[in-house]
Formats: sequence, C-alpha cells, structure tokens
Amino acid sequence: MIRHTCLLALVLAGPAVAADPDTVAASLRDRAMAGSGAYALVESLTTEIGPRLAGTPDEARARIWAVAKLKALGFKNVRVEPFDMPVWVRGIETAAVLGANAQPLAVTALGRSGATPANGLEADVVRFATYADLEAAPAGSLAGKIAFIDHKMLRTMDGSSYGAFGAARRSGPSLAASKGAAAVLIRSLGTGYHRHPHTGGTNWAAGQTPIAAAALSLNDSDQLNRLLAKGPVRLRLVLTPRLAGTAQSGNVVGEVVGTDPGAGAVVIGGHLDSWDHGTGAVDDGAGVAITVAAAKLIMDHAPKPRRTVRVVLWGAEEPGLYGAAAYAAANPPGSIALAAESDFGGGRVTTLKSRVAPEALPLVKRMQALLAPLGITPSSDNSASGGPDVGPLAAKGVGTLTLQQDGTDYFDLHHTPDDTLDKIDAKLLDQNVAAYAVTTWIAATSNVSFARAAAATQP
Amino acid sequence: MIRHTCLLALVLAGPAVAADPDTVAASLRDRAMAGSGAYALVESLTTEIGPRLAGTPDEARARIWAVAKLKALGFKNVRVEPFDMPVWVRGIETAAVLGANAQPLAVTALGRSGATPANGLEADVVRFATYADLEAAPAGSLAGKIAFIDHKMLRTMDGSSYGAFGAARRSGPSLAASKGAAAVLIRSLGTGYHRHPHTGGTNWAAGQTPIAAAALSLNDSDQLNRLLAKGPVRLRLVLTPRLAGTAQSGNVVGEVVGTDPGAGAVVIGGHLDSWDHGTGAVDDGAGVAITVAAAKLIMDHAPKPRRTVRVVLWGAEEPGLYGAAAYAAANPPGSIALAAESDFGGGRVTTLKSRVAPEALPLVKRMQALLAPLGITPSSDNSASGGPDVGPLAAKGVGTLTLQQDGTDYFDLHHTPDDTLDKIDAKLLDQNVAAYAVTTWIAATSNVSFARAAAATQP
Ligand SMILES: [Zn+2]
Ligand SMILES: [Zn+2]
Ligand SMILES: [Zn+2]
Ligand SMILES: [Zn+2]
Repeated sequence: MIRHTCLLALVLAGPAVAADPDTVAASLRDRAMAGSGAYALVESLTTEIGPRLAGTPDEARARIWAVAKLKALGFKNVRVEPFDMPVWVRGIETAAVLGANAQPLAVTALGRSGATPANGLEADVVRFATYADLEAAPAGSLAGKIAFIDHKMLRTMDGSSYGAFGAARRSGPSLAASKGAAAVLIRSLGTGYHRHPHTGGTNWAAGQTPIAAAALSLNDSDQLNRLLAKGPVRLRLVLTPRLAGTAQSGNVVGEVVGTDPGAGAVVIGGHLDSWDHGTGAVDDGAGVAITVAAAKLIMDHAPKPRRTVRVVLWGAEEPGLYGAAAYAAANPPGSIALAAESDFGGGRVTTLKSRVAPEALPLVKRMQALLAPLGITPSSDNSASGGPDVGPLAAKGVGTLTLQQDGTDYFDLHHTPDDTLDKIDAKLLDQNVAAYAVTTWIAATSNVSFARAAAATQP
Repeated sequence: MIRHTCLLALVLAGPAVAADPDTVAASLRDRAMAGSGAYALVESLTTEIGPRLAGTPDEARARIWAVAKLKALGFKNVRVEPFDMPVWVRGIETAAVLGANAQPLAVTALGRSGATPANGLEADVVRFATYADLEAAPAGSLAGKIAFIDHKMLRTMDGSSYGAFGAARRSGPSLAASKGAAAVLIRSLGTGYHRHPHTGGTNWAAGQTPIAAAALSLNDSDQLNRLLAKGPVRLRLVLTPRLAGTAQSGNVVGEVVGTDPGAGAVVIGGHLDSWDHGTGAVDDGAGVAITVAAAKLIMDHAPKPRRTVRVVLWGAEEPGLYGAAAYAAANPPGSIALAAESDFGGGRVTTLKSRVAPEALPLVKRMQALLAPLGITPSSDNSASGGPDVGPLAAKGVGTLTLQQDGTDYFDLHHTPDDTLDKIDAKLLDQNVAAYAVTTWIAATSNVSFARAAAATQP
C-alpha cells in the first residue's frame, strides 16, 4: 500500500519531474512480482472460450473476448485486423493393430493431414528410426506402406530439441508421401508419457498430394516398437480431417499510446488461437496473459512512454503463422521499433536475448541489469528469433527480444488435451510479466533504434 | 554367480538335508531382488494383448496368453476355469458445454452405465459438492437434470481414499437416478491431472433403470466448476455403451505342486482382465507378473513345499468380481490354506498385514522379520482384505495376507488410457516378487492353519 501511494505520487508528478526510467522499471518489476493479474486473464480465456482452432467460430469468440477484455482494461485503439485463411478441421481418428496382437493405438491427425478413405486403410508399417533414415529410403520404396517416423525428441530446457528434430513432423509426411507411402505416423514431437499424441502442423511440398498423417503418443510409439520387434505389424488407420474452405481470422490489437507517434511501436503479444485438443493454457494463453498484463502495468503505473506500447494477439499462428504474415504485410517495419512474442508457456524467464542493431546492445544490457533481481541470466546472444509471430517482422529488419523461458515441461503438454489451466502457476506468470514490463518500458522510453539492416536474405 | 551355485547345491541336496525354510526364504528374497523376471511378464502381457475388457475376445486372448505362459514356465495343472458373465461395452462418449462458453469436456462412461439417446441429450447441470449433499437432495428434485457429483478423492499412499470416497462412482449414479436425474457426471475417482477421465464400475440398485453415467477428468471437473461459478451450465452428452449379452470369461490357474495334497493351497495372483482404455500395466498386469514370478522362483529355486502354491489369474474383476465369485463357489474354503492378491500397481511393498487365525500370527511375524531387509514395515493389523478377488474366499474364513504397496501414484493412472508399460519400474516389481516369494514360501512350508472361523456375517 505504501509503495502504491509513492508510485502514484511519482506518476501524478508526470513528465515535469521526468522520473528516471530505470527507477520506474524497477517499480513496475516489483509491482508485477507482488501480483500481476496475468493468471486471471489466462483463466478467463481458457475457461470462457476453451479451445480456439484458427478460422473456426471458437477463434472468433476468442477475438470478441480479447476486444472486450482489452477495452475493459483501458487499452486504446482496440481493433481486430482481419485476414482470410484456409481452414482445416479434425475428423475421426483411430488406429488399431491388426492380427494376433490386436489393440488400439492413440493417434491424432497432424494439422493439414490428408484423409484416409472414410472406412480407413490397412497397411503394413515400415519404421524409420530417424528422419535421415527416411531421407535415405529409395524412391517408391514406401508404396502402399505406413511410414512410421520414430525420431525421438528429448527434453531440453530451452526447447531447442523441438526445432532440431521437428522435421519428422513438419516435412516427414510430405517426404514419405513422395516415396509412395499410403500414410504416415510419427512419434509425437513431445516429451510427456501421458498417452496423449501431440498434434501440430505439417507442410506439403508443392505438388505433393497430402496423405493421412498422424502422431502417435510416446507410449504408443514405444508399444509399436515392441510389436515391430516381434514381427511385421499391420495397422488399420482411420483419419477423416478435411479442408473447410476459407474463413476469416484476425489479429487483435490494443495500445498504450505513447507521446511520439512517429517513434515506432513496441510490439508485444502472444497468439490467440490454439489447437483444438486442449484449452490452450500454456500455448498460448500464457503469452496472451503475460503481455497484456505487462502493458496494463505500464498503462496504470508508469508515466506515458515515448513510444506506443502495442499488444498484438495474433490469430491463426498454429496452422501456419497466417496472422503473423498478415500483420507484417500491413505494418511497415519502420512503424515498429521492437517486437517480442511470448509463446513458450508459463515457465519462468531464464534469460534475455536480442536481435537488434549493435548500437542498441547497451540498452539491452540495461534491461538485463534490471532483470537480474528476477534471476534472469544475461545473454550476449544477438540472434534471438523474438517468437514465431514476429518472424516476418524480424525478416524485414525489425529488432526483436526473446525473453527465453524455462520450457522443461512445455513439450509434455504442447498441442495435447492436457494443455489446461491447472498447468499454469500464477507466481511464474508474475515473473514473466515483470520481465516484459521492464523490457517494454525501457524500450518504449528510449530514443535508441533497434532496427537492423533489412534482412531480406536472412528470414 | 557364486550365490547361484551355492543355492543350487542347497536345492540339489533336496529334502534329505531339510533346508531351513527361513534360509531358503532369504535366498529367494535376495534372488528376486537381483532380477525376478516379472517385468518381462508384464511387458509380454501388455504388449501382446493390450487392453482386455472382461468378456471380450481380448480377454479371451489374455487367457490363451496366460495358459501358454504358465505352461512354458513349467507350472503344473494349468487350466482355464470358465464362467459366464454379462458383458458391457463402451460406445461413443462426448460431452460439450453449450452456449456462450461452448467447449468439449473429456468424459468416459462408467462400467454398466446406461445410454443417452443415440443423438445425445441436453440438460442443465446441478452440482453436488459431496456425496452427502446428493443424499440430501429431495426426491424428484433432479428431474431432467444432469447431476454432477464433485466429491474430491485426495492422494493417499495406501489408496484408502478410493474406498472412502468411492461411493460417488459406485452408488452415486443410482442414487441420482432415483431422484429423477437424466444423467450423471462424476469427478473422476482419481488423482492425476493429465486430462484422462477414469472409468470404473457403477452399481444400480435393484429395480433402478440405468441412466447415462460418466466420469469427467479432474481438469474438466475444475473447468465445469469455474463455468458454474459464472452461471447456469447446459451440457450436451452422448454416451452409447450397451450390454452385449452373456459371454464366457475364466480364471486361469497354474500350480507348483506341493508334497501334501490335503494341506490346502496357498493362492496368489492378480486379475487378468483390464479396463479398455489402457493396456492394464498397473491394473493389473503388475499383479499378474509379480505373483507368477514369485511362484516361478519357488518352483525353480526352492525345495518342493508341503502345500501347493497356486497362481490364480482371475477373470472379469473389473466389471464386478465375477471371477472371484466363480472361484469361491468352485473351491471349498478348506482346500485353500491362505490367499493373497496383488492388485494395486507396481509400487514397492511397504507393509505386510494379515487376516488370519490368532494361532497363525507368530508365522506372520516370522514373515515380517524376513521382509524387514526389503524395508517392509511390520503391521499388527489383522483385518487385511487380501485383495478384491480373494474377498469371497475371506468371507468364507480363508486366511488372507495383504502385501500393501505404495500406491501414491496409482490413482493417477488407474482405469485411464495412461495405464501403460512405461509406468512400470522393473526394480520395484522385483521387490514385490521378493515379498511374495517369502510369504508364499513360508506359508507353503508351514503346518499352521490360517483359517478363521467362517465369517458368514462379516463379508
Ligand atoms: Zn504457440
Ligand atoms: Zn503451438
Ligand atoms: Zn485391479
Ligand atoms: Zn481396476
């Protein structure tokens, strides 16, 4: 209470007193740690909306929720920036071992998977221990087979294994299809043994007709390995997802308006859509909540910054970054000073990395000093992505920050039914809000340009 | 290797030398701890058969598996003791919140649940925080409603909360139906937050027509509570399980034949059937494996005992102890000296309890002394159940032992798809086998009678 009164005095004093930005930053940080309100936001989104698959009425409800929430919190210029996108929806999905060891296997279709015939297909399984093994398979050698890509993704704190071994999901099905496969099963890109297959998008090479492509849970992947060790395995697979035409999605935007309209906005946010299985608490209700709460903290408890703080809640991230593409197409890079997305769950921030012009690095160091009391380790890595939805902006030279989180458990939950509110720790969200409030505030009050040379050749 | 040679010499010396039973017991115990082979048994059952719902072809395959396995291991008098039972099979099961907060909820039908109409039913939810609250609801007050019994089962090491709070599942649906409910949802009798509803049997009072009755996952139970806090909740529920007539199940039996046919058998075992969601690794592949491995150890590494060691792998435990009833009906209590079932997963044995005649308690103490090196705490509790499938024998006065396990995590997995082989720790199984080998061997070599006065009034 005492601190609240003091800060209020500071704020009311306004620009005339010109509060030291670092002092304000420290105050925002400490206030966030005392209770940021982020948990209530992710609770509201996941409870009232639940799953919000891109391009569906559920995602549309999430936009209505976001607009109402941002307006109620006092954000300015609250709006939906709509765009069109192709919609893919799930159908029936079952898999069963045939013959002497008959039993069901837990599967789920990958995003943009093709379909089996309505009554399914039966085929023998050919296993590939690694993606490289699949690459080495001769052309035509998979004709009529179900390719099982068994590439293991191990647990890492920073999630780097997801990028490193994600090819099995992202391009494995297309590659197997090009070699004649009738269908593809992959070991889930995941680390959790709770019998949930992990969905996620897969990409089809130009000209490649999609085939049925699904993930097996890790439990079932191990089971399939044990069965294959005993002899040939024949499966029955029914997957009936479908493309459902074009629908509207949208990015939801709200602002804490700065004093200098020409200074470029500091963009922070998360993505509003989720996969259909869970309620999208860690992916990415957490990121939505963290960044909205951080901007709200600046709105309420700091002087008006020079740069506008803009919260962008991207639509249609999961099926292929459609919101990110639309946002980058509509916003010239010069209009955005710096961008950062929170899209790695609700774990604590462990380090601050950047991808900014060299002249902005001293400011990053200032941010890191302010974050040190939160246990956030400084990093000199200046090649941070900033998050999936800011990728198209970064490709145009916009500077980015990555507030890297501890994602040790993230891939236990990611893209499964088990991504639910109970996985969110309010105190860890507060630490994230503290970190976003500090970095966003410092960036918004500075005169430094973060923009890199346009990175047309290095997206 | 050295120890192996020594024991072999001991065994080869045979009855002429009359090895001290406690010395043999200690040797069996230590041998089990060095590798009992139990893991390979549960691996084989869960991999080759998978789920094995009572009365289905899957359970029949499990009997074929068990007969072949027992014969291959050298058991004598291997046989199936068949019986008939009513079969219940699962159908479609979906639940969804209607209206402004539209979203799916994860549900699964309880065993013997009735069905909704094929296209489902829609009704408002009435919540009961406890079973007692449901009991207090006036007659007819639930007409046309979905009763939500939200009684929480908390985690306990010995699983006592399952018995204490199980009424919500076992008799809650019948009670709600008697007050007019259209359908029932219960908070799963479980402790795991991995978005799996827990199935399990429910009982209908005489004359009560079954209604649709399903479990919600804990995650979804919490979600429903949050939604109810905002206002009335209307659900659409589709459950289409059905009774599938009468089918044959059976108990599978194998023996290590003792020297005295009139001395009564020492019966140990687990149940062969499982629910349909998982592969029945902890419930009850573990119990099957532990007890078979313990008897095999006695067969191979001890002199022939006085009493026959009989492994009974009960059928149809889950839907209502049909195998137990058939077994007790077919076997006079005087033919069984002592009985114990392992049916609480693969956790370590923490204590040995009994329910035996007072004159047998000194022998239980001898067992406890031999188990102390395994970290098994002695108990003076002489009211142990012995396990669900020996209940009907105990009711007739047969003495029982309970090798109580650490079930702290058991109800995270129990009756869910997540009951799979990866949850089994081979070393913990070995400790169980060591404990069963000791108790079974000591009981089989003794002259003590465990039989209590026939307990007709205390089932
Ligand atoms: Zn995401
Ligand atoms: Zn995602
Ligand atoms: Zn059981
Ligand atoms: Zn059970």
